[in-house]
Amino acid sequence: MVVVMAQEATESDIKAVVSLVEAAGGEAFVSRGVERTIIGLVGDVQQFTSLNLRGMGGVSDVLRISAPYKLVSRENHPERSVVRVGGVPIGPGTMTLIAGPCAVETPEQTLQAAQMARAAGATLLRGGAFKPRTSPYAFQGLGEAGLKILADVRAETGMPVVTEVVDAHDVELVAEYADMLQIGTRNAQNFALLQAVGEAGMPVLLKRGMSGTIEEWLMAAEYIAQRGNLDIVLCERGIRTFEKATRNTLDISAVPVAQRLGHLPVIVDPSHSGGRRDLVLPLTRAAIAVGADGVILDVHPHPETALCDGPQALVDGDLRELARIVRELPPLVGRTLTEFADDAVPA
Amino acid sequence: MVVVMAQEATESDIKAVVSLVEAAGGEAFVSRGVERTIIGLVGDVQQFTSLNLRGMGGVSDVLRISAPYKLVSRENHPERSVVRVGGVPIGPGTMTLIAGPCAVETPEQTLQAAQMARAAGATLLRGGAFKPRTSPYAFQGLGEAGLKILADVRAETGMPVVTEVVDAHDVELVAEYADMLQIGTRNAQNFALLQAVGEAGMPVLLKRGMSGTIEEWLMAAEYIAQRGNLDIVLCERGIRTFEKATRNTLDISAVPVAQRLGHLPVIVDPSHSGGRRDLVLPLTRAAIAVGADGVILDVHPHPETALCDGPQALVDGDLRELARIVRELPPLVGRTLTEFADDAVPA
Amino acid sequence: MVVVMAQEATESDIKAVVSLVEAAGGEAFVSRGVERTIIGLVGDVQQFTSLNLRGMGGVSDVLRISAPYKLVSRENHPERSVVRVGGVPIGPGTMTLIAGPCAVETPEQTLQAAQMARAAGATLLRGGAFKPRTSPYAFQGLGEAGLKILADVRAETGMPVVTEVVDAHDVELVAEYADMLQIGTRNAQNFALLQAVGEAGMPVLLKRGMSGTIEEWLMAAEYIAQRGNLDIVLCERGIRTFEKATRNTLDISAVPVAQRLGHLPVIVDPSHSGGRRDLVLPLTRAAIAVGADGVILDVHPHPETALCDGPQALVDGDLRELARIVRELPPLVGRTLTEFADDAVPA
Amino acid sequence: MVVVMAQEATESDIKAVVSLVEAAGGEAFVSRGVERTIIGLVGDVQQFTSLNLRGMGGVSDVLRISAPYKLVSRENHPERSVVRVGGVPIGPGTMTLIAGPCAVETPEQTLQAAQMARAAGATLLRGGAFKPRTSPYAFQGLGEAGLKILADVRAETGMPVVTEVVDAHDVELVAEYADMLQIGTRNAQNFALLQAVGEAGMPVLLKRGMSGTIEEWLMAAEYIAQRGNLDIVLCERGIRTFEKATRNTLDISAVPVAQRLGHLPVIVDPSHSGGRRDLVLPLTRAAIAVGADGVILDVHPHPETALCDGPQALVDGDLRELARIVRELPPLVGRTLTEFADDAVPA
Repeated sequence: MVVVMAQEATESDIKAVVSLVEAAGGEAFVSRGVERTIIGLVGDVQQFTSLNLRGMGGVSDVLRISAPYKLVSRENHPERSVVRVGGVPIGPGTMTLIAGPCAVETPEQTLQAAQMARAAGATLLRGGAFKPRTSPYAFQGLGEAGLKILADVRAETGMPVVTEVVDAHDVELVAEYADMLQIGTRNAQNFALLQAVGEAGMPVLLKRGMSGTIEEWLMAAEYIAQRGNLDIVLCERGIRTFEKATRNTLDISAVPVAQRLGHLPVIVDPSHSGGRRDLVLPLTRAAIAVGADGVILDVHPHPETALCDGPQALVDGDLRELARIVRELPPLVGRTLTEFADDAVPA
Repeated sequence: MVVVMAQEATESDIKAVVSLVEAAGGEAFVSRGVERTIIGLVGDVQQFTSLNLRGMGGVSDVLRISAPYKLVSRENHPERSVVRVGGVPIGPGTMTLIAGPCAVETPEQTLQAAQMARAAGATLLRGGAFKPRTSPYAFQGLGEAGLKILADVRAETGMPVVTEVVDAHDVELVAEYADMLQIGTRNAQNFALLQAVGEAGMPVLLKRGMSGTIEEWLMAAEYIAQRGNLDIVLCERGIRTFEKATRNTLDISAVPVAQRLGHLPVIVDPSHSGGRRDLVLPLTRAAIAVGADGVILDVHPHPETALCDGPQALVDGDLRELARIVRELPPLVGRTLTEFADDAVPA
Repeated sequence: MVVVMAQEATESDIKAVVSLVEAAGGEAFVSRGVERTIIGLVGDVQQFTSLNLRGMGGVSDVLRISAPYKLVSRENHPERSVVRVGGVPIGPGTMTLIAGPCAVETPEQTLQAAQMARAAGATLLRGGAFKPRTSPYAFQGLGEAGLKILADVRAETGMPVVTEVVDAHDVELVAEYADMLQIGTRNAQNFALLQAVGEAGMPVLLKRGMSGTIEEWLMAAEYIAQRGNLDIVLCERGIRTFEKATRNTLDISAVPVAQRLGHLPVIVDPSHSGGRRDLVLPLTRAAIAVGADGVILDVHPHPETALCDGPQALVDGDLRELARIVRELPPLVGRTLTEFADDAVPA
Repeated sequence: MVVVMAQEATESDIKAVVSLVEAAGGEAFVSRGVERTIIGLVGDVQQFTSLNLRGMGGVSDVLRISAPYKLVSRENHPERSVVRVGGVPIGPGTMTLIAGPCAVETPEQTLQAAQMARAAGATLLRGGAFKPRTSPYAFQGLGEAGLKILADVRAETGMPVVTEVVDAHDVELVAEYADMLQIGTRNAQNFALLQAVGEAGMPVLLKRGMSGTIEEWLMAAEYIAQRGNLDIVLCERGIRTFEKATRNTLDISAVPVAQRLGHLPVIVDPSHSGGRRDLVLPLTRAAIAVGADGVILDVHPHPETALCDGPQALVDGDLRELARIVRELPPLVGRTLTEFADDAVPA
């Protein structure tokens, strides 16, 4: 059961609902999104029904949700959500490009990648300081030093920063530098980490598990939402199948399916899906055309020396074509590329 | 090893090459495409090298191909092929729409579906008279009666006919009525059937096996090519994965990958991939944007009473949007919708 | 709906049932097994109910079956079936070993392999004369010459022959030489071929499709049964998954699951599942322990020169261990190794 | 590169190696197993070669390992390892049964389940106090209260305790109560957690990721080993495939494959693989027969009221058959059931 608060609801309205539910032996999970606050109830539904919650101050609606994910379900929230990252919107009506290096290596490399990204049309900068790697002997990222580089590049370019967090211990640290916390595919069911980012009060980019069903992905989002955070963007990044010609199989159908089941924005990562540079632009076109709310991809000034995933990073020549695609394709699906206001940001 | 014949090569040039190869203890497979004839050699490569094939009349080139598929490999044939079906081209530069009912049920239903398809922009008519069904108790198609209906509807609408053949015995019969023979996903490694359609001298639409790798798909095409037929169009129709929200997982990346490895046209079936009507248009947009040479989909005047796959058939309301998509999207990827010449066909 | 005939039912009893059903507008499929004949009805169930079939001569029972496969379902046939191949039983209570070369190459190689197989405990000889190969350039088998070799080796060793048929055209030819017709994994949904072997009146070994669900496998068996043949043995041979360390992933659970859903014997092919010699004996042990009714595996006198699947063939050294396993393990699961009667066969 | 220390090596021998490597600009990871200590070197292999490590005190061998996992590879450690959990061995020569309730619910339920387990032949008690659940609304375990129950039941039955840890924060707490830390399938690439248990100095049971390759599984073990802990037992628990008849597909081949690649013990979880009670005993038989070093399974006194995974828990009737299997089957594969010494433990 979900209590939807009115936009004008006060903190004390919220507290009153929580207290009543707890007094009745239930649990109440408060989730604050940019647009509204909702309260998920866990416990005896019959008893909640008898509480007359709908009559309380600041309550806009009370809903029974049949989906196993309550707070992120579109049953409760028919219009699709917009999530804002440092002011940049991701959601219906727009197509937002997120780009940057897979891993932050040096200030120069990161700045150059950001400038390449911005020139192509990106409004958000991606870059990894903490890298989860299959091998303990592979480059694991620069850690806090990498976060500092990202913050410096943000100051220089005006691009808000999306970066991965791999350990619940690090959430606070990463949140100091980032504008959006990324949960990687290997942590898609790391529930302790999901709960920690749910409590961080910052937008979250939630990648689909490489063998996660769409339902499990929405349930992972529910773990975040339940801890009070509805500013979640889902990211399809390819699933594991028998096909070996590509690193993963981009499940392009997952975009409309997840948009229909949940109200959260859904973007696509064409770089990690295919794992091959020659597939990035075709898959970017497919993602925009299918109706994704955004695309996140790897750019690198010198992919041949990249410490991580060089073979899939776009290079200079590809970026002019990318710039054309992200401007020409979205209008055909009723969207416009998210762009910086002319006077709003340095660069 | 592959011998590429010049366009002006004569039958006796071809025979001379075959005889020489056979005299040297090898086998020679002659494949005739719309644009050129090539001869695949099987046997001792060293010996073939000593034959000086390049010096023979009508020979344009002699190539060693490292891919396991020789005749369909792009190594041998760098420019991508165009396949013509009853005059309608499928290949680079164009985007061809194939549509019609999953199964032929009645003359009225087939004609109505064809008119809906044509109004939306289709130039080829699909429709099944022989249906391979998982259950022996399911509707198996009308057989020859269905083929006659298709031929009648072709006469009425001017749309050449694509229809499935499921048994090597039936190839001759189906070829009497059809313009293109379709091999379904369950027969993707039915080598006897592949060889039979290879000998039928008619274009073939080869669906990918639902768990076939891209390499196996190209090898299946090689079976057809080896019997003398290079007019093959590949069709991605979704692969089997763990995800249950869709009937199959459309492997959108397979389109650019197969186009890079082979010279054959590659189209997409968004109806059978998703198995849900609400996914057909989004996946059609994705298919065009990724660079497919065509799209094949199900339309039905009354999907609620369809004998086969009703839930995925497009209905009237969707078709106006389809008509817009297939005209507006292709130019963004350097293509134009294949259309009938104004005076060429009845309708 | 299924009509189960009594053991003492006559041909005219059967014909009477068929005529009555057809007169009522239905279709009747007669399936003859070693133990009993059953008739599957397709059409209007309400109408069949009104026919009083149960009162007809030779009818033992009339059943409504809810499973999509009627004739092979255990709903209709609670006790599990025994299939006899040239007198050798496969079914509950026994564990039958089938072994031989993947492909028949020469009389010497086939005889040697058969003798190795027999010494290890095999009572049936496997060997391929028609080989379905992913590549048209790979060795496709000796064809009829191979069948003759198999028949000669049967005469010499007394081992009935199991061999694959890949084309409906060849069924009659293969049936002249063989004791059991094998349908390979690539033809698991080649319905024309399934129907053809259904009509051949000879036991069938039906391999699971490499990406076929257990339900699809039973439906494929239903195609055979519907054409009058219940002497079907199912063979699990590994499914296609993301794991690359083995050629396929042996789905060991499929054995008890298929035995619970259908009444047909279920055996395991540990050679093709793993695709590695070092896995054959461990997987054979697992198959016997899980309760398989038999095991089919590759042996070759000289695997290093085998024309097909040499890397997975057992060699001499392994066979002593195999002989121990197939004798010691079955009693622990309530079975005994099927062996030749001392005086029944040459060797 | 790996330095294998002699059994008699002292702490100062180890320190000397580490110091030398670090002075040369490399990193040294010390891993202590029950049987030996090994030191993994990361950095410039050429330089390490010049250090004459083989001549240092306490060094038994210096090896170059080509596998991506160094410390767990069998290249370095040809004989397979034994891991001892509270004195109970898991490894070659024995077959160890681990059983207990999926989730700890009450003291009575846990004690009863333990007694059932022990009567069937189990020497280790499994039970979850922290449960990672797909839904945030599902029972998440009793937490520390559950750990206390486990410790009490250990005191009562003498069975060392295996229990899951889901958050790096909890490792210390869980390690206070447990004898072996379990990493669940959803955390198979939660590298922060793997490192934390690597530092806990306690045996680890590492489940395979539900879509993890065997190589990724060994790499996950390497993360643990690299932090100084070689007492790792691998557990195959089924992988995710297209087949829906079972919850997961038990990859029985993974047991011999992982035993060949790594030196760690490998056990099987037949309860979670199949997710069905009727498959647990057949899969247990298969696991023992294939050569697993142990089996872990769910028992529950009242599965119908279990808070977690009731449908797969063995009940009383099954346990007598289990007791027979675990005693009769291991000798056929050269093993004996691990049993308590008569006088060593209460019960």
